[in-house]
Amino acid sequence: PGKKVLIVYAHQEPKSFNGSLLKIAVEELTKQGCSVTVSDLYAMQFEPRATRNDIVGHLHNSEEFNYGVETWEAYKRGGLSKDLIEEQRKVQEADLLIFQFPLFWFNMPAILKGWMDRVLVQGFAYDLSKSYDGGLLQDKLSLFSFTTGGTKERFAKRGDVRYLLWPMQHGIMHFCGVKVLEPHICYAPAHASEEKRKEMLAAWTQRLKTLWKEEPIDCSPEWYFK
Amino acid sequence: PGKKVLIVYAHQEPKSFNGSLLKIAVEELTKQGCSVTVSDLYAMQFEPRATRNDIVGHLHNSEEFNYGVETWEAYKRGGLSKDLIEEQRKVQEADLLIFQFPLFWFNMPAILKGWMDRVLVQGFAYDLSKSYDGGLLQDKLSLFSFTTGGTKERFAKRGDVRYLLWPMQHGIMHFCGVKVLEPHICYAPAHASEEKRKEMLAAWTQRLKTLWKEEPIDCSPEWYFK
Repeated sequence: PGKKVLIVYAHQEPKSFNGSLLKIAVEELTKQGCSVTVSDLYAMQFEPRATRNDIVGHLHNSEEFNYGVETWEAYKRGGLSKDLIEEQRKVQEADLLIFQFPLFWFNMPAILKGWMDRVLVQGFAYDLSKSYDGGLLQDKLSLFSFTTGGTKERFAKRGDVRYLLWPMQHGIMHFCGVKVLEPHICYAPAHASEEKRKEMLAAWTQRLKTLWKEEPIDCSPEWYFK
Repeated sequence: PGKKVLIVYAHQEPKSFNGSLLKIAVEELTKQGCSVTVSDLYAMQFEPRATRNDIVGHLHNSEEFNYGVETWEAYKRGGLSKDLIEEQRKVQEADLLIFQFPLFWFNMPAILKGWMDRVLVQGFAYDLSKSYDGGLLQDKLSLFSFTTGGTKERFAKRGDVRYLLWPMQHGIMHFCGVKVLEPHICYAPAHASEEKRKEMLAAWTQRLKTLWKEEPIDCSPEWYFK
């Protein structure tokens, strides 16, 4: 109770299975007394492209545009675009970040990848020697909750599903110092029976009830590739 | 000679190291007698978001929007948006796809991920039982060429760089039946001496000279995780 949660949500359709998972998380966490904020990326028409527009006013080096350098400099002088400052404020306030999305190509949809690219800039999320366990977003938790097109069996046939979590969980969250809870994966809801879909939704509600007692995963290569 | 190459390029700045790598590829491959096409995503202001706008005219199910289903149906009736049809035409004609980009968060920049999400739709790149070695884009080669922020040593400290290639090379290219050449990685050009940068550019020219003699990698979990 009193915990703050940011849900970054990337689905176009409120009636989708992802939409139901979002609704459940908002309701259950609110019921627990958490304060829940949702960034509904498609509804916000969130910009995924990393461009010069993200920097208000003059550039540090207008001869040769370097996005990483420019956003770092802009962050330090409070010169990032409004939408980024707003998302960074939400992240800063949150105790837990939940990413809710359908897996696209073994990965996040581009709109969510764009949120990572543009919001988690140097100076805000990490810095020169401040990364991994020293990252700037320590004392926060994260959870990747996603649906897949393929069944669990189909995924397992081609190697462990954990392989695809490495860039997201380790490369982004762990790099910023954010602890990572077990992912929540709903396999192939589009091909499941109505009963099975209800079971999957109930399992998410159930998990959320004891979420705050969970221990983060061990963010080492062994967790992913053993 | 006579081979067709599509370079999908994702950098904002022509004067960047990625810009130099692109220029080298265009020049060297053209010199070999290849026909080279470039999709310069930032210059095209390529749209990375997967939305209803990608479908021209009526929806298959306007009650509940499902991007995968709608683009599949639209593909079959020639109803995808113009920019997608144009990119698919370029892919269809190409013998080799080169992706040139700076690594953002252990992954492609969002604008390039959006190209994957929107261009490689069902019916065009894969189909119900047509994936992996049966994928619809067989007899094509691909090559991921990218720069990193961190040095090789820094990457190696946290597990093999191949781990992050799994979603891109296996999850996307291999899934569509496209063969994958060894990735081309330029580590931390921003922190390298002018001499070292020149060496890296020369190495790319050199590799391109014998590119057509290369054998694709073995796209199995063993290549990535051994």
